[in-house]
Amino acid sequence: MPSLMKAVVKTHAGPGFELRQVPLPQIGPKDILIRTRATSICGTDVHIYNWDVWAANRIKPPVIIGHEFCGDVVEIGAQVTDVQVGDFVSAESHIVDHTCDLCRTGMAHICRHTQIIGVDRDGSFAEYVCIPAANAWHNPPNMPPEIAALEENFGNAVHTALEAEVVARKVLVTGCGPVGVMTIAVARAAGARSIYASDISDYRLGLAKKMGADVVMSPKREDVVKTVLEETSGEGVDVLLEMSGAPSAIRDGLQLLKAGGHAVLLGLPSKPFELDLANLVIMKGITVHGIAGRKLWETWYEIRGLLRSGAVNLEPLVTHRFKLEEFELAFQTMMSGESGKVVLFP
Amino acid sequence: MPSLMKAVVKTHAGPGFELRQVPLPQIGPKDILIRTRATSICGTDVHIYNWDVWAANRIKPPVIIGHEFCGDVVEIGAQVTDVQVGDFVSAESHIVDHTCDLCRTGMAHICRHTQIIGVDRDGSFAEYVCIPAANAWHNPPNMPPEIAALEENFGNAVHTALEAEVVARKVLVTGCGPVGVMTIAVARAAGARSIYASDISDYRLGLAKKMGADVVMSPKREDVVKTVLEETSGEGVDVLLEMSGAPSAIRDGLQLLKAGGHAVLLGLPSKPFELDLANLVIMKGITVHGIAGRKLWETWYEIRGLLRSGAVNLEPLVTHRFKLEEFELAFQTMMSGESGKVVLFP
Amino acid sequence: MPSLMKAVVKTHAGPGFELRQVPLPQIGPKDILIRTRATSICGTDVHIYNWDVWAANRIKPPVIIGHEFCGDVVEIGAQVTDVQVGDFVSAESHIVDHTCDLCRTGMAHICRHTQIIGVDRDGSFAEYVCIPAANAWHNPPNMPPEIAALEENFGNAVHTALEAEVVARKVLVTGCGPVGVMTIAVARAAGARSIYASDISDYRLGLAKKMGADVVMSPKREDVVKTVLEETSGEGVDVLLEMSGAPSAIRDGLQLLKAGGHAVLLGLPSKPFELDLANLVIMKGITVHGIAGRKLWETWYEIRGLLRSGAVNLEPLVTHRFKLEEFELAFQTMMSGESGKVVLFP
Amino acid sequence: MPSLMKAVVKTHAGPGFELRQVPLPQIGPKDILIRTRATSICGTDVHIYNWDVWAANRIKPPVIIGHEFCGDVVEIGAQVTDVQVGDFVSAESHIVDHTCDLCRTGMAHICRHTQIIGVDRDGSFAEYVCIPAANAWHNPPNMPPEIAALEENFGNAVHTALEAEVVARKVLVTGCGPVGVMTIAVARAAGARSIYASDISDYRLGLAKKMGADVVMSPKREDVVKTVLEETSGEGVDVLLEMSGAPSAIRDGLQLLKAGGHAVLLGLPSKPFELDLANLVIMKGITVHGIAGRKLWETWYEIRGLLRSGAVNLEPLVTHRFKLEEFELAFQTMMSGESGKVVLFP
Repeated sequence: MPSLMKAVVKTHAGPGFELRQVPLPQIGPKDILIRTRATSICGTDVHIYNWDVWAANRIKPPVIIGHEFCGDVVEIGAQVTDVQVGDFVSAESHIVDHTCDLCRTGMAHICRHTQIIGVDRDGSFAEYVCIPAANAWHNPPNMPPEIAALEENFGNAVHTALEAEVVARKVLVTGCGPVGVMTIAVARAAGARSIYASDISDYRLGLAKKMGADVVMSPKREDVVKTVLEETSGEGVDVLLEMSGAPSAIRDGLQLLKAGGHAVLLGLPSKPFELDLANLVIMKGITVHGIAGRKLWETWYEIRGLLRSGAVNLEPLVTHRFKLEEFELAFQTMMSGESGKVVLFP
Repeated sequence: MPSLMKAVVKTHAGPGFELRQVPLPQIGPKDILIRTRATSICGTDVHIYNWDVWAANRIKPPVIIGHEFCGDVVEIGAQVTDVQVGDFVSAESHIVDHTCDLCRTGMAHICRHTQIIGVDRDGSFAEYVCIPAANAWHNPPNMPPEIAALEENFGNAVHTALEAEVVARKVLVTGCGPVGVMTIAVARAAGARSIYASDISDYRLGLAKKMGADVVMSPKREDVVKTVLEETSGEGVDVLLEMSGAPSAIRDGLQLLKAGGHAVLLGLPSKPFELDLANLVIMKGITVHGIAGRKLWETWYEIRGLLRSGAVNLEPLVTHRFKLEEFELAFQTMMSGESGKVVLFP
Repeated sequence: MPSLMKAVVKTHAGPGFELRQVPLPQIGPKDILIRTRATSICGTDVHIYNWDVWAANRIKPPVIIGHEFCGDVVEIGAQVTDVQVGDFVSAESHIVDHTCDLCRTGMAHICRHTQIIGVDRDGSFAEYVCIPAANAWHNPPNMPPEIAALEENFGNAVHTALEAEVVARKVLVTGCGPVGVMTIAVARAAGARSIYASDISDYRLGLAKKMGADVVMSPKREDVVKTVLEETSGEGVDVLLEMSGAPSAIRDGLQLLKAGGHAVLLGLPSKPFELDLANLVIMKGITVHGIAGRKLWETWYEIRGLLRSGAVNLEPLVTHRFKLEEFELAFQTMMSGESGKVVLFP
Repeated sequence: MPSLMKAVVKTHAGPGFELRQVPLPQIGPKDILIRTRATSICGTDVHIYNWDVWAANRIKPPVIIGHEFCGDVVEIGAQVTDVQVGDFVSAESHIVDHTCDLCRTGMAHICRHTQIIGVDRDGSFAEYVCIPAANAWHNPPNMPPEIAALEENFGNAVHTALEAEVVARKVLVTGCGPVGVMTIAVARAAGARSIYASDISDYRLGLAKKMGADVVMSPKREDVVKTVLEETSGEGVDVLLEMSGAPSAIRDGLQLLKAGGHAVLLGLPSKPFELDLANLVIMKGITVHGIAGRKLWETWYEIRGLLRSGAVNLEPLVTHRFKLEEFELAFQTMMSGESGKVVLFP
């Protein structure tokens, strides 16, 4: 192995990244070293690139970015037994403590002491990445690298879409970014009766349609509430999957939800906003599910099941491929709103 | 039977009620006529008395008020088979259509065409009241009338407290009005590990303590968030039962809820308010349950079970008893904040 | 309307049916009269035809047989409001009391006083059939009659397959009679990762394959336990859907079920048999669900959702069509084991 | 620390145990060494003492017996961070692999590679016992040792009783051995409406009554089915908690269970037996839950909650206390049927 590697680094407190030559990560006794095959850009990476308030409060430069990836194991720590050199793995990006009350009761995805790869420690926009062996997920050798890299992000969609019962039910998906359209694909695979999807980007609505939405709507052009009520004979939908974080979408979505329905919220509003809890939640007797990350490891087994059966095909979502060195172009593409997932190849 | 009866009537659009002599209700083929033994005052009745915005939009005078009651069946319609003259019954106050999609899928409590007794049609602040036989609930003959009258309202508490798993868990109840303290009693009966209760009224905190709260807190005197965190070693609670509708209580309650916990909301905020959904709901991965009414009839069987076993004793909650003619005094008592349930005897 | 109609009648205690001219049914105030468009043969009808022990204990001749059907409403009772003359309806075959503790708590499908159409009262193998309006289910006018007739039976499959979580999971279906293969179709529509199906009839295994099974197995030719273990890398399946009632299939199925898995049982063993509860159920920590009928009306909404979205297509299952007069031939076909659903057209 | 310790050892393949002086256990880097304060006798220990078929197939002598215990940590391995010398701990007796599909999806209690302390490796009938730190459960310093020793076994009862909803419901407990009567205590704490309990031992029925049963019944003296039907107005019970493993109790219990009810099975039948699945499970639409061990660690948090709130008091169940050296007398007492829990103090 070489002693140096290429990596995309957040070098200082401020916008932008730099491509650097840095030493290879040193692994501990429970860690593994992975040669990165593919790594995709997440909305979180864009926040870090742009250095918004959240990033400024969370990131301690210098740090290598990136947490959606796959690769080949090239070295394992002394105590590692479940992973072997040569394995083709993806990774759960949340490193959890395994000992808090939440980890011990099936809620490790919201562990009290989560560290995130590529956020709180060095990540995958690099030729090599070091992770705890406990975070590795084995893939079949012939899985396309860009799909294997997507699994972590796909997990958010799987967690969201399967939190409520969608089979034979009417589903509204508000927000058609990459996670939103993957959620549509899961709802379709899980037997949804009909899927209504909204977004302000026509490019994304095109992807939504391709991934399984029955009806796509732009709030720029039409009244989403009116359209969905017409489509559902005035009844509204059984399930809301909210992927945008936009207050107007949350309000419209809750209004369109049938009494007794389920709202699953993944999109993060950028700040507090006014909500009519009495009329939209309480008197309607609905249930609201907040979604963070992926369940360790229930969601990953579901990811595997959906991909291996072919019930979900993520290929149409991978719209752009770049070399790691082209990261600037890749981020510009991602930020243009005219892309699905953008994948880097180190 | 007499041809006239005493009744407390909302006679016109505006504050107050009047005691009137009115004709006895005429019953239809599926109805029953009940001689009222006891009827209690609900917060809803106070809204109607005060003629607030909600009342002005909903109530069509003249209408006899009152929907929490019990009494003896004195007449049955031609098609009634399940209820007999002489039966001692309470009533579910929601008259539902039995045919909408919600009624047909176990959610009759949020039926699309609910009519409420004492709100949308004549109610129980009267010597006699007519209801559909399908709304009657049989009581044992020796049940105290003031307890039988309370069952409907108790049902809100049962529905709320049993919507989340409370057994062996830490529970925060925000708001100790009558439904709030009954919720405390149910959580205690269902095996809660500890119950923290907050209210701004010391009288109500006294009732909360009497009905089973371990720790009572007044936000007027102390920092509820700080107290609960101290009591729970910084972990917070597993379950929030929100009974106040106060935005500050909702925010504090959600902040105190553990990640992955369950918030059950019954208290109605009087208007939309600012909420930090991202930090209080979504990233914490919690579940929020809106509660309306009582489940038909799952909740009623639970009411029966909790009262017959003695696991819940509602007697301490009945703090005031009045004749129907004393309704003005009864409402003043109710509005003083220095009462539990106030019961009228026609 | 004519005064007489053709009907297939169980005329006496013993094997066989007779085609008779009988008076049209008289409807009560809550009933509707339906002109039958199509009616399909159920396994239950075969039991009645053959006059087995169950039939001898349950059936009181004379009675018109048949409970899977659809047709046009030609008359309604005086109190009927939800159904109109001209409506195209199917029917829930269980007539329930609406008032027992089970009906009142969301379990009407196992009502304490169920009466079954075509079993306990006159059924649908006739030109006209009378049912309570409350048992009617509205269909779109353009739904093919043979599919509308199948909905009731399809409901058993929907109830079974959706009782456990199948999405992204490995499913074993033991027994590929008509309900079994419909269960396969539902599991496929709901996103099952893989579906293994067993039956002793090659004809039925062919249907199973057509309706979505990945692997079909005949216990006559192979060791089902061995095959499924090989297919699942020795892990077994997450969900067992048992549709045969055969003790050997139940035992094999439970053995193949992963610890913590779900077994859903619909097939009825003909008599008590030896079961190793300790090793197959208790120590494995599995959950076993007994299935009777369809949920009123949750299952019917799911039926609608699965058929309207096209997620399930029942057409390949309708293998034989006969005139009502050809009922003998129809029953012989049904009993040959070389058929899917057999539909009669009065 | 001494180099030798007293221990009760299964020295050879055959009935009985021997008190021996043996070397203290050597701990590994992830282990802890506990000085045993108290250790109680489980039914499993009796099987090993008597050397029945199960024991002969599972136990590899020599092995120190015992898996219900508590004590003080006197040494920790080099990699242990969560446990400290001086901690007062109890232990989960199942040592799991943390990496199989079941461990990774919230079902570690049925891990594919479970090792049990005192069964598959040396246990707690000794002055010292070595366990993985990951199996330790912290107790408050002032918890009585005999209660802390009981927690593991109590966990079986908690797991069983909370697997079905018992609040406000009618519960039948068949089998009143120690786990049975603890299950009664949990059902009572969780708000059961009424608890009916059966056993053939009058001593145990006395304990059942003391721990919260409303009605106790001996099948030797009365017809349990008849009694429960009379007590429940012919309706039967909502929940069956089967703790005996006796085929007759399982059959009676399932017969008494209402349609749609929940049966939770912990008692292990000694061999396969005839069961009428069609009438007792399938057509009744019930759900059957097999119970193995305790959930890691959900059940332990529930144990803590129930004991700390005082909702369950286990003191009355500890009927006999012996020195470790008196193990023969202790086992004779345990086997007499005239005891609750028998606790040894090394």
